Amino acid sequence: MNGAESLVRTLVASGVEVCFANPGTSEMHFVAALDTVPGMRAVLCLFEGVATGAADGYARMAGRPAATLLHLGPGFANGIANLHNARKARVPIVNVVGDHATTHQRFDAPLTADVAAMVRPVSHWVESCRDARSVAAAAARAVQAAREAPGRIASLILPADTAWSPAAGPSPRLPVHAPAPVSDAAVARAVAALRAGRTALLLRAEALRGDGLAAAGRIAAATGARLVCDTFAPRIERGAGRVRVERLPYRPEPAIAMLSGTETLILVGTQAPIAFFGYPDQPSELTPPGCTPLVLAHPHEDGAAALEAVADALGAVAPAPVAPFRIPERPPAGRLDPGSLMRIVGRHLPDDAIVSDESITGGFQHYAVLDTAAPHDFLSLAGGAIGDGLPVATGAAVACPDRKVVVLQADGSAMYTLQALWTQARERLDVVTIVYANRAYKVLMDELRIVGAAEGSGKAQALFDLADPVLDWVRLAEGMGVEAVRVDETGAFEDALASAVAARGPRLIEAVV
Amino acid sequence: MNGAESLVRTLVASGVEVCFANPGTSEMHFVAALDTVPGMRAVLCLFEGVATGAADGYARMAGRPAATLLHLGPGFANGIANLHNARKARVPIVNVVGDHATTHQRFDAPLTADVAAMVRPVSHWVESCRDARSVAAAAARAVQAAREAPGRIASLILPADTAWSPAAGPSPRLPVHAPAPVSDAAVARAVAALRAGRTALLLRAEALRGDGLAAAGRIAAATGARLVCDTFAPRIERGAGRVRVERLPYRPEPAIAMLSGTETLILVGTQAPIAFFGYPDQPSELTPPGCTPLVLAHPHEDGAAALEAVADALGAVAPAPVAPFRIPERPPAGRLDPGSLMRIVGRHLPDDAIVSDESITGGFQHYAVLDTAAPHDFLSLAGGAIGDGLPVATGAAVACPDRKVVVLQADGSAMYTLQALWTQARERLDVVTIVYANRAYKVLMDELRIVGAAEGSGKAQALFDLADPVLDWVRLAEGMGVEAVRVDETGAFEDALASAVAARGPRLIEAVV
Repeated sequence: MNGAESLVRTLVASGVEVCFANPGTSEMHFVAALDTVPGMRAVLCLFEGVATGAADGYARMAGRPAATLLHLGPGFANGIANLHNARKARVPIVNVVGDHATTHQRFDAPLTADVAAMVRPVSHWVESCRDARSVAAAAARAVQAAREAPGRIASLILPADTAWSPAAGPSPRLPVHAPAPVSDAAVARAVAALRAGRTALLLRAEALRGDGLAAAGRIAAATGARLVCDTFAPRIERGAGRVRVERLPYRPEPAIAMLSGTETLILVGTQAPIAFFGYPDQPSELTPPGCTPLVLAHPHEDGAAALEAVADALGAVAPAPVAPFRIPERPPAGRLDPGSLMRIVGRHLPDDAIVSDESITGGFQHYAVLDTAAPHDFLSLAGGAIGDGLPVATGAAVACPDRKVVVLQADGSAMYTLQALWTQARERLDVVTIVYANRAYKVLMDELRIVGAAEGSGKAQALFDLADPVLDWVRLAEGMGVEAVRVDETGAFEDALASAVAARGPRLIEAVV
Repeated sequence: MNGAESLVRTLVASGVEVCFANPGTSEMHFVAALDTVPGMRAVLCLFEGVATGAADGYARMAGRPAATLLHLGPGFANGIANLHNARKARVPIVNVVGDHATTHQRFDAPLTADVAAMVRPVSHWVESCRDARSVAAAAARAVQAAREAPGRIASLILPADTAWSPAAGPSPRLPVHAPAPVSDAAVARAVAALRAGRTALLLRAEALRGDGLAAAGRIAAATGARLVCDTFAPRIERGAGRVRVERLPYRPEPAIAMLSGTETLILVGTQAPIAFFGYPDQPSELTPPGCTPLVLAHPHEDGAAALEAVADALGAVAPAPVAPFRIPERPPAGRLDPGSLMRIVGRHLPDDAIVSDESITGGFQHYAVLDTAAPHDFLSLAGGAIGDGLPVATGAAVACPDRKVVVLQADGSAMYTLQALWTQARERLDVVTIVYANRAYKVLMDELRIVGAAEGSGKAQALFDLADPVLDWVRLAEGMGVEAVRVDETGAFEDALASAVAARGPRLIEAVV
């Protein structure tokens, strides 16, 4: 058995069953090992940012890590932006990064780079093997590190000769600690604050799903506490039958206004709210004056259990009222706009769908429409690095083959990782992508106005214009094997969406808004 | 004047006239400054890898740096692979990397990352400003650092508040040292070796152009020395009327065989040859036994002047015979293949064209066909990180608006930075892209065979197959506003190429090979 086979066997034994791959020459023996070892699904991605974003989406839905297989420093670098997002989403990922053979590294070959230096800024755990016999144990440690609560990025750098040289055998799966329990004192402080009133719970991660969310609902029902979630939470269970949670607004002023009057902001799996960007003369911290943040559960702690403990201590046994199922009214016939688009999505979202949202300006203001749509998981751009909507959807579809995935996707951001559409077609993934074709970096046009530079020679405005030439998303999708249609009227969009939802397999709708 | 305006004015004063930009919110004031300051052309790229690759192509042809404008750590990271290539090409680039406002950095906002740590591995020079008044001087130093011979990557990290806060004014251009002269001793050693015979000159950079190449030719004519260039030289002046230079083969065995019998390998602007990858039981160093490498000029030294000094010392005044102009014979009618494709390119390459080559397996073996084509500049994938063919062509076309740019582009690699086509359409750049559609990562299929894993369950082979679904390059190009056609016969390809060469503006030909 060579090092490569020992790696793949160890990953499979450790519960890693999917590898999103974009390999090169230095990874050839790892690729060859996929033929020998059963139990690992290899999903080819035509760009590394697709592979890392798919691993993020997979982990958000599967709750366990996928592997990526990446080629040397530059190949890893192409995946950094979506690893940044995954890191902020706090999901587990195991990156296998090939490097030149140890004997080859001292020469300045064209692809020689400082792989470890590129890997470190987005990895919680990095190990670089120097011989084949250490690969299996390192791989087991990588999976263990990735699975440590709340989920971490582990990167294993494997020189080519650690793949092709003889190794002993695979390593067994290593134990993973459960998330740390929250202290009784933290629970007691939260209970006291809730009894005092004027509280809000700011929720993220497990607190936005299942038992955690139900417990938060009981607390809200018993005490009148508001339930709020981070602006970009990695995953929320929403829709009919679920406890409704308000989303913190994106811009500082409305965020502060929303929290005004709250005396204690109880944090569950998140930090006190921070503005997305700093602006002249605006605060970075969004906790309003007179409001005190209070940590119930840090991200590495068991936020769901903490909420249940608080609810029990309060005697809050009555479940919260949940969102009703309400089909949004059909918008009037006419030009499609982001508002009518979301209403139509709400009309046709299938039960138990997964929504991957990177709609930026287009979707944000109409987010609440889906509060009463069919129950679904809603995945947001957790790290702000654009280009995760399509890859996250791709990975989520691999993790959940029986659920429909719907992507709400801004056009500018879609261009960063459009290669994901090819993988969707290749793997026959059940993904419907709705491209908000506003043909601009609309959010930046807004920002430019905010900084007071909307006038001028037009050179600045031109940097946010995507209309010359127009991006033709039907051709782009078809070019990668995905059936697509363009619509600009409400009726046509509803027909296209109904048809795409009824079918299986990848579809794209270019919605001109 | 704010920091942003002082930056742009300083860049323009320092000779930086083009900025390949993909900005975000934190760069908004820099964008706004473009409206105020004349003299800077802003070219929008829809992905950062396009911006950095275009800056590389611009610098290779213009001989001076362009700026890039990139958004925070993840945006910079998207540009790393092509900065890696630019670094190996040893060209000057000035990266302007926005960061969160200094007041905002201590909070863990979604886009917070260790920008400097991401920037360092591919930058020769890094500076991070902390206040607006230091921006102008730092920008002048950045340009100076980038222009230091032979060309370096300078990255200036600018927190948003250094852009919006008041600054004094622009900084003047700083002096740039000429490349270091080669010592008389180095010249004398090379002369002695050449007089002894059985020498080869291994050339790169300035030694492959103009006076440097002419001097190398005179040396070869006088001494019988062979002229060889690096496998992937950043830029070569080739074709009819130029001194012919042999290209070092890609694989170790033929490279060593080519140099066998050479007693002294004189290095001009490059290092002793190294294999692209390490392989089991194959050497990394390609200098054959019995051959001694001898440095005439290090990369930072003036290789062209050194060659002229050597030629003068040898009394080598007679110019070398140059390549004749020879129109390749028209290939027989029938299915197109890489060989017939290159012959047809040789028939239609216009005078003074720029060829951006990322054809990988498709073009490599037919490279010599263009030795006798019309004179042209030939640009190669200097750093091996795939995805530079289209961006480099884009930047070269911006640098040389009066020259036709022809891209020889493998299909797999093209997918990494296909967004470059949009910028070509937007800027009406005169680029003809020929996609070698072999619908596979062909080089990796070869590599897999070499490591002995071509058989097996087929999972491995499937990772190199791009035929399910087929990438439709006509639709992909048209989706970004570039006129395109698909051909699979020699006659149709010749018609398509002749028509594309005769027209102005971007065209793409999907050549099924």
